Amino acid sequence: MDYLNTHFYPGENSASFGYSGTNYDPAKDTLVYALGGLGEVGKNMYCFEHDDEIIVVDAGVKFPDDELLGVDYVIPDYTHLIKNKEKVKALIITHGHEDHIGGIPFLLLACPIKKIYAPRFAKALIEKKLQERKRLANTEVIEINGDSAIQTDHFRIGFFNTVHSIPDSLGVLINTPNGRIVETGDFKFDLTPVGQNSDYQKMAYIGAAGVTLLMSDSTNAEVDGFSISEKQVAQAINDIMKKTTGRILISTFASNVNRLAQIIKAAKKCGRKVVVFGRSMENVVEIGMQMKTIDVPEDTFLSPELVNQYPPEKLCIVCTGSQGEALAALSRIANGSHKYVKIIPGDTVVFSSSAIPGNALNIGGIVNQLMRNGARVLENSALSSLHTTGHASKEEQKLMLQLIKPKYFMPMHGEYKMLKLHADSAVETGIPKENCFICANGDALVLHEGEVYRSNTRIQTDAIYVDGNDISGLSTSVLKDRKILADNGLVAVVVCIDSRSNKILCKPGIVSRGFVYLKDSQTLIREAEGLVYDALRNAMKQKVTFGDLKNCIKNTLEPFLYEKTNRNPIVIPVILNHVDAMRKDTAAK
Amino acid sequence: MDYLNTHFYPGENSASFGYSGTNYDPAKDTLVYALGGLGEVGKNMYCFEHDDEIIVVDAGVKFPDDELLGVDYVIPDYTHLIKNKEKVKALIITHGHEDHIGGIPFLLLACPIKKIYAPRFAKALIEKKLQERKRLANTEVIEINGDSAIQTDHFRIGFFNTVHSIPDSLGVLINTPNGRIVETGDFKFDLTPVGQNSDYQKMAYIGAAGVTLLMSDSTNAEVDGFSISEKQVAQAINDIMKKTTGRILISTFASNVNRLAQIIKAAKKCGRKVVVFGRSMENVVEIGMQMKTIDVPEDTFLSPELVNQYPPEKLCIVCTGSQGEALAALSRIANGSHKYVKIIPGDTVVFSSSAIPGNALNIGGIVNQLMRNGARVLENSALSSLHTTGHASKEEQKLMLQLIKPKYFMPMHGEYKMLKLHADSAVETGIPKENCFICANGDALVLHEGEVYRSNTRIQTDAIYVDGNDISGLSTSVLKDRKILADNGLVAVVVCIDSRSNKILCKPGIVSRGFVYLKDSQTLIREAEGLVYDALRNAMKQKVTFGDLKNCIKNTLEPFLYEKTNRNPIVIPVILNHVDAMRKDTAAK
Repeated sequence: MDYLNTHFYPGENSASFGYSGTNYDPAKDTLVYALGGLGEVGKNMYCFEHDDEIIVVDAGVKFPDDELLGVDYVIPDYTHLIKNKEKVKALIITHGHEDHIGGIPFLLLACPIKKIYAPRFAKALIEKKLQERKRLANTEVIEINGDSAIQTDHFRIGFFNTVHSIPDSLGVLINTPNGRIVETGDFKFDLTPVGQNSDYQKMAYIGAAGVTLLMSDSTNAEVDGFSISEKQVAQAINDIMKKTTGRILISTFASNVNRLAQIIKAAKKCGRKVVVFGRSMENVVEIGMQMKTIDVPEDTFLSPELVNQYPPEKLCIVCTGSQGEALAALSRIANGSHKYVKIIPGDTVVFSSSAIPGNALNIGGIVNQLMRNGARVLENSALSSLHTTGHASKEEQKLMLQLIKPKYFMPMHGEYKMLKLHADSAVETGIPKENCFICANGDALVLHEGEVYRSNTRIQTDAIYVDGNDISGLSTSVLKDRKILADNGLVAVVVCIDSRSNKILCKPGIVSRGFVYLKDSQTLIREAEGLVYDALRNAMKQKVTFGDLKNCIKNTLEPFLYEKTNRNPIVIPVILNHVDAMRKDTAAK
Repeated sequence: MDYLNTHFYPGENSASFGYSGTNYDPAKDTLVYALGGLGEVGKNMYCFEHDDEIIVVDAGVKFPDDELLGVDYVIPDYTHLIKNKEKVKALIITHGHEDHIGGIPFLLLACPIKKIYAPRFAKALIEKKLQERKRLANTEVIEINGDSAIQTDHFRIGFFNTVHSIPDSLGVLINTPNGRIVETGDFKFDLTPVGQNSDYQKMAYIGAAGVTLLMSDSTNAEVDGFSISEKQVAQAINDIMKKTTGRILISTFASNVNRLAQIIKAAKKCGRKVVVFGRSMENVVEIGMQMKTIDVPEDTFLSPELVNQYPPEKLCIVCTGSQGEALAALSRIANGSHKYVKIIPGDTVVFSSSAIPGNALNIGGIVNQLMRNGARVLENSALSSLHTTGHASKEEQKLMLQLIKPKYFMPMHGEYKMLKLHADSAVETGIPKENCFICANGDALVLHEGEVYRSNTRIQTDAIYVDGNDISGLSTSVLKDRKILADNGLVAVVVCIDSRSNKILCKPGIVSRGFVYLKDSQTLIREAEGLVYDALRNAMKQKVTFGDLKNCIKNTLEPFLYEKTNRNPIVIPVILNHVDAMRKDTAAK
């Protein structure tokens, strides 16, 4: 079979088995490392480097947690790739989720890559992304599937079909001069899947041929057992669709096209017209229809503006917002601000989804609003089977380990606890503990003639915070300031002096934001202004620098405000110098 | 039995059954309303008003969600009670959780109440609170139990024992001139409890005598079935204690004294010394020992400084931090900053708790750190039984409804969705739908001769945000500013003018915080300063007001900054007037 690169035979003996901390020989050895995805869920990016070639698998973003105030995305530090631009031979995408493709625009701006290899559905999503940024429109996206092969000077790369919560997901087989590597991508096993099936035979064949290193999805390493089948979910949705008399609203992850296809089919079967709300959902339905993943006649759908002219029992509204996102269609429907749809008593709202950690409170808020407006709300539970995960649970992870039968194992795609538990599972399947590598982003494994070592080389990695257009990233000092601003607000003290005469020209003025309610705090502010004025006059009896004055303001004000309010706002002293103005200059920084 | 006030016989007929929107007769009717606790989990406060008397049951706080930047507590609006100070005859506490007692210091400062009635354990906790604030030290806390009775002019109040996740929890029976009311407090049914048992006989007797209105805990209305018993949890902890060879660290809710007692007993049985870390845990263990709820010899405990001189397999560390709280003992142990304890390989950390919604990410972070340091971590799951809730699941809620058999029902203590589902359960047990009242804080129910109506009277309610010492509350405008500051930071523009000559004295200076990394943005700031300078000079060719100048600055800067950075920081114009300085005045506001 073509996808097995037969030129490689792993070395039979190695003096330094399990050896850790070795340097590698850049001319002979193969390096494996992650720029993102280890010790976290998100911004997946795994690299394979040999001599003058680097193969990159996936380029994802991570969505920031609440601590990262105002941050829109977190992306990996691309410095290593930028420094080695010439070496980057291919970017391979395993599937179209944002934590695997969302970093592409940022990566391409920093490090031009001419060819991106992606499976069909991911390709469509990536092309949409690239079209939105004209500078990137000439990057070529090449479609791959389970039968594709990519050949570079040192690598021969093949693929195998997997099941995941988005169509066309692939696992990757990388034949290197030092051994075979399997990188699973995100996967689960579903014994009765909807859509593409796992290619068990190919995985087993690869395992039989001999795999040096398996890198496998750890997301659900904490979850016991075997996940439920998409067919079971489809059945549950069918049942609801049949039994419900009023209008049905269903929310799910927009990218789960097979789920959408099931929902739409079920609606059609029960004589309900489908209306789609939410931009990402509309995009995906459009792509799904083009690709026939959603295989229904056009007239299954109803145009949004007709939604209120149709009897409720003949309607199925499919919408975004299953994670309680504030601006998504479901939130707007719940709070009454949606253009077309308002909740009416008798509505049934189905969450064909489960809460991503961190979203429980937002989802709860939406459910409250929906019920307040008279809707019945059905959420996924152990009993209801309204959703199934896209990631392998413990037993499925073990099945992957059994099929691929690797000599070495590196759990990937997960927080530390997930990687650790996945490694424990690997040991249970018979892989020696010392052959399991729990790595962090930037750690490098060396493949040397069929053996794997942990190198003492570290690749530069970091989390880059993207806010607005600024892809250069936000520094942690900005975020620290935001945290203090968020908790305590700010107090700015402005004073205008004449540094030649050493006099105060304008009495200090104080403005504050997010600190105290100003109407109630006039006395406090007046008192503070007086205090600062006295302190400054006192200080300026001697010759002082701007730094001295700024410190004087801070040292006077901070203890005073804390004593009065028990808060520590950021105190910003601003000193304007009259002299500077004459010189057409300013000293306000 | 004394606790049934036999002077009341409900009226047999009522023309206006289920009538909604009626006004009430303040001389004859009884009013029931919540100042907190409806439509939310937290700040519980239920009031019973008749003529010149108000009985208040519970005075809790709510902990703010992430949206409430810098807010420490949320408390109810006490305005109605302050206005009716003279009427408030008693504050009755059902149990010692913060969402039932945490508001007491704030309430007492606003509205002096001489007598607080509280069960034993709550009394101890309240007294600790009052001692911390000298002004409140002369409020008397009177101990009550299941046999207590309180008589006022119009009310006769009795109690019954319940089971909850803190010792000495009570349900309240309020005999009013217009009917009997049962307020359950927080409860669950545990058929094999640890500690106090539910008084099934008394509840059933009250039900047999006839109850007009039941107000019942809705927290777990979404949870099917019957919750597991505390005995089952004790068994699971015993098993772990027996089988584990290394050191054991257990974290649970500090107030769950019965759980603590079980943990400590299990440790003692296995020959482990107990070390307690975390202030709230130390407090509770102290009180628990005094009350013999924790009934072990003093030498069961080991002094913290000896913890590292003892063999690990002989140690059980009990600590705070089960919700991932950043400053709690477990967090400090996990991140290596704890004074005495560092995680060593072989440690087992047990979470005898489950995640309160909103805390999952923080807990996950701690688990990652613990495992990274080599600990085995055991969390509660359907299989492990390491925790059970303190609140009634669906079937237990129905059991309460069956025992009390009320004519009218008002679900309390919960978000809207919980209240609604609890009302659905009540209907399933046979209460007519129109007799179930889903209320919001401030809604008032009228009891009139054994019937209940919804009144069109509204009691003033609001959420008051407490930050630092400021019990007057934070306004929403301050919070809105904090939100913008948190997401985008601020840009302050300072300019000094002479309003007599209509001239700019100092060129505009810009300072920013939390906006962009200043070192990389010098050009942007210079450019912005130039823009503002030009715009101001242009504006000042005519006679302008301070308001005009401020608008000029905002209108110039905001679009410019958004275009350059895609962010909308708060722009704060500060204008200093040289003339004002001469007049010893300032115009910086």
